[in-house]
Amino acid sequence: MGSIFSKIIAGEVPAHKIAETDRFIAFLDVRPMVEGHTLCVPKKEIDYVFDLTDDELSGLLVFSKRVAAAIKSVVPCARVAVGVLGLEVPHAHVHLVPVSQEQDFRFGKSVAVSDARMQELATLISERVELRGA
Amino acid sequence: MGSIFSKIIAGEVPAHKIAETDRFIAFLDVRPMVEGHTLCVPKKEIDYVFDLTDDELSGLLVFSKRVAAAIKSVVPCARVAVGVLGLEVPHAHVHLVPVSQEQDFRFGKSVAVSDARMQELATLISERVELRGA
Repeated sequence: MGSIFSKIIAGEVPAHKIAETDRFIAFLDVRPMVEGHTLCVPKKEIDYVFDLTDDELSGLLVFSKRVAAAIKSVVPCARVAVGVLGLEVPHAHVHLVPVSQEQDFRFGKSVAVSDARMQELATLISERVELRGA
Repeated sequence: MGSIFSKIIAGEVPAHKIAETDRFIAFLDVRPMVEGHTLCVPKKEIDYVFDLTDDELSGLLVFSKRVAAAIKSVVPCARVAVGVLGLEVPHAHVHLVPVSQEQDFRFGKSVAVSDARMQELATLISERVELRGA
C-alpha cells in the first residue's frame, strides 16, 4: 500500500494541513477546483469510501462538517459542497469545495493558486476549525 | 417551505422510490447523470447538508451507504460516487452516482433514460437494498 495520502499522514510528503484527529486529517487539495478546496481523509488506508464501517463513515462526515464550517468562514461562498469520487487516489477522501455556482464544482478542473496563497489559506482555515465532538 | 422533495416524501409528487426509513428516503434522480443516479434525502426539510445535526448527518451517510451497495449490485460501475452541491433544491440531498470514469460525474449533465427503464432500475435497485442498521 502506501498511497500519497498515507505519505502525507506519515509526514513523508508535505501538505497544507487544515486539521487532524486521531482518525482523520484534512489538508488543501494541491489541484484545487477553487481556492479553499480541501480533502478530508481517514488515516486508515481504505480505497472505497463505502468500505469504511458505519462508525468510520459517520466520523469522517462529522469531521468534514467541522472543517467545512471553517472553510465557509474564510472563503466567500454560498456553501461548501461535498464530493467523493475515488477514481484517482486509492485512499478514500472527501472533497470539500466552497461553491457559489454549479460550475465551481467539477472533477478534473483546477485553478492556479500560488504556494504563498495556499499557505495563507491553510493558516486562516486551520485557525477556524473547532473539532469539538469530532 | 414545501420543497419538491417534501412533496415526494408526502406522496404528492410521484418518484421512482428506492428505499425509505423513518428519517430518510431515496429515489432516482429525474435528471440522471448516468443510469441509476439516486438521491438520498432527509425527511426533515433542511436546506444546507452541514446544518444537519451530527447524528442526522451520520444517519444520512449510513443510509446512503446501504443504498449505494444496492446500486453497485445492479448498475455496472467502478464505484458509487457521492456528491452534495445544494444550489438547486433547498432541501439537503446526497447524489449517489455509479461511475466508471471521472466524466460520469458532472453536475448539470444528464442522460436520457426512458420512464420504463427508470421503473425497471427502481425495482431492481430497491429489491437489493438492505437497511439493516440504518
